[in-house]
Amino acid sequence: MAITLSLSLPQPTTQLHLGHGLLESDLLTSLCEGHRIALVADEALETLYAAPLAARLGADLFLIPSGEKAKTEEAKQRLIEQLLEKKHDRNTLLLALGGGTTTDLVGFVASIYLRGVPLILIPTTLLAMVDASIGGKTAINTPFGKNLLGTLYYPKAVVADLNTLQTLSPQERLNGLAEIVKMGLIADATILEEQSFSSLIEKAIRAKISIVEQDPTERGLRRILNFGHTIAHALETVSNYQMPHGQAVAIGCAVESYLSHTLGYLSATDLARIPRISVSLPKNYQRQALLEAMKRDKKNRQGSIRFVLIDQIGRAFPFDGDYCRSVNEKELEPALDWMEENSLDKSEFFP
Amino acid sequence: MAITLSLSLPQPTTQLHLGHGLLESDLLTSLCEGHRIALVADEALETLYAAPLAARLGADLFLIPSGEKAKTEEAKQRLIEQLLEKKHDRNTLLLALGGGTTTDLVGFVASIYLRGVPLILIPTTLLAMVDASIGGKTAINTPFGKNLLGTLYYPKAVVADLNTLQTLSPQERLNGLAEIVKMGLIADATILEEQSFSSLIEKAIRAKISIVEQDPTERGLRRILNFGHTIAHALETVSNYQMPHGQAVAIGCAVESYLSHTLGYLSATDLARIPRISVSLPKNYQRQALLEAMKRDKKNRQGSIRFVLIDQIGRAFPFDGDYCRSVNEKELEPALDWMEENSLDKSEFFP
Repeated sequence: MAITLSLSLPQPTTQLHLGHGLLESDLLTSLCEGHRIALVADEALETLYAAPLAARLGADLFLIPSGEKAKTEEAKQRLIEQLLEKKHDRNTLLLALGGGTTTDLVGFVASIYLRGVPLILIPTTLLAMVDASIGGKTAINTPFGKNLLGTLYYPKAVVADLNTLQTLSPQERLNGLAEIVKMGLIADATILEEQSFSSLIEKAIRAKISIVEQDPTERGLRRILNFGHTIAHALETVSNYQMPHGQAVAIGCAVESYLSHTLGYLSATDLARIPRISVSLPKNYQRQALLEAMKRDKKNRQGSIRFVLIDQIGRAFPFDGDYCRSVNEKELEPALDWMEENSLDKSEFFP
Repeated sequence: MAITLSLSLPQPTTQLHLGHGLLESDLLTSLCEGHRIALVADEALETLYAAPLAARLGADLFLIPSGEKAKTEEAKQRLIEQLLEKKHDRNTLLLALGGGTTTDLVGFVASIYLRGVPLILIPTTLLAMVDASIGGKTAINTPFGKNLLGTLYYPKAVVADLNTLQTLSPQERLNGLAEIVKMGLIADATILEEQSFSSLIEKAIRAKISIVEQDPTERGLRRILNFGHTIAHALETVSNYQMPHGQAVAIGCAVESYLSHTLGYLSATDLARIPRISVSLPKNYQRQALLEAMKRDKKNRQGSIRFVLIDQIGRAFPFDGDYCRSVNEKELEPALDWMEENSLDKSEFFP
């Protein structure tokens, strides 16, 4: 006797709302209906958005540290204990208000608290709106590396209020723009021509949704979202995480575009069309350390460094469904030479 | 401008294989193809099943403690660190070999390691085959209570080899039978008449699949799986987790059937048909402590204790889709009186 049965689950779906003034609109009130609410917010947003919103929704308010300090085992444990102490049960809806580090932590906690409670993300940075809040990735860091623990957990809704972007610092704006340019390079060339700021955001979100729907668990196509990130993650590591993510991604996109050209995939004409922005390398930059950091990249297979490459603006090369290619140190050399030469004078970096 | 987009994910599906000799068959080999394998097993199964299976599959073997000691923050952290140290990446497939505590821990780790790696469960106890391995629940305990952290994470496959049941202790067999009887009481009366052991298991699994598919996140119908468990969890707490889960569930099913009768849902004829088994209460049993423990049950709403109730053998009463009903202490009294009277002589307990 041997039998085989199968168990199938319903499709998870996230509603994404994008617009001006959504924080003050009735949308959130109606999404929260029927639930007890726990609002978890970046402590930097307490007076500006968090306290007024908690009051309006009748929510318990929990503040978490800004930046990567949110993504630690300690911050995770503390939030869980606070929720347990306040007796939040499975009828509680978690709201995450803040940037990508906030949505990463709160998403992770929502996915593991009592085996999962409903979640709504309210991204307040450009990066979180176009990238971190789309696609269900949650994570915390470990002493072994960044984002090593996390889940794929789909929020019930994402509410992106464009008004919150008015208070962004130039650095935070650059962080988001770097990811938007990346989306243009790998998936939709029209993004790079777009003049309207809100349409730019909408296009980047649409492109990401399309990629995530085709490959939710990152077994193939979704890897293209790592374009620019092999170099970027290594630069962040070398800088001891002092380099802002957006700056690292901007350099990464430029270098990996150049690499796509030197390896024969991207034409010189296309390379010349890639937008220019000014960036510089970390002060303590050393090529050997960068190479070592790249050898620990999550895309690697059997020790070889793998890159996502583009063969035209707006298209990542498929490599038989793998969407990345092993590149040896010799092949990588000209691109690193070019990066170092172009960064010395700290002038405009993109070609 | 305000737009709404939606992001939908594919349906997760688990294949369940049930039969004799599956551990030695080609099934596991073919399910593991193309992956590096990490086999995580209950340390009690090392020589009997784990080491030979690891050798046959070329797997790294990791041993975890038996019983509830597996479901701790420390055991979770240790397993994650061992996987990171051995450089297991997202191409690794985790195999969990053992009972419910093993599948709960390994399932949790699989769901959070690098945001989720593929998972196959190989339950080796009757309880794990019919209950713990079906439906995606994973969990660890916290100082605040049992199963408070966990995920819903669907394994790629469950491989239940009936041969592994030949070495079960009578207590482990009772643990599984109590859950099977529960399935009979709430969902399929024919289970209680079934003579063939393997058909009994298959029917219990089919009944659980049907319930889980209708309500994967336990917002309504899936609550009926908690029949007998309001009393059972409280008894386990009162006994300081010395009472075996199966014994607690057996008592719980009897008492909650009796309660279904005294509250006017279940007929005397049906009550008399419920199977008898011998059980006794914990030595340090006190009614007040039991009531206190029930007040912390996960099904409770606004402080009132809620019970799943049956209105005939094989059917839980729907209560407008809530599938449970508040029961006050006065209503509960006759059922607790009856439980205490019937347990004093430690004779046959079921009516």
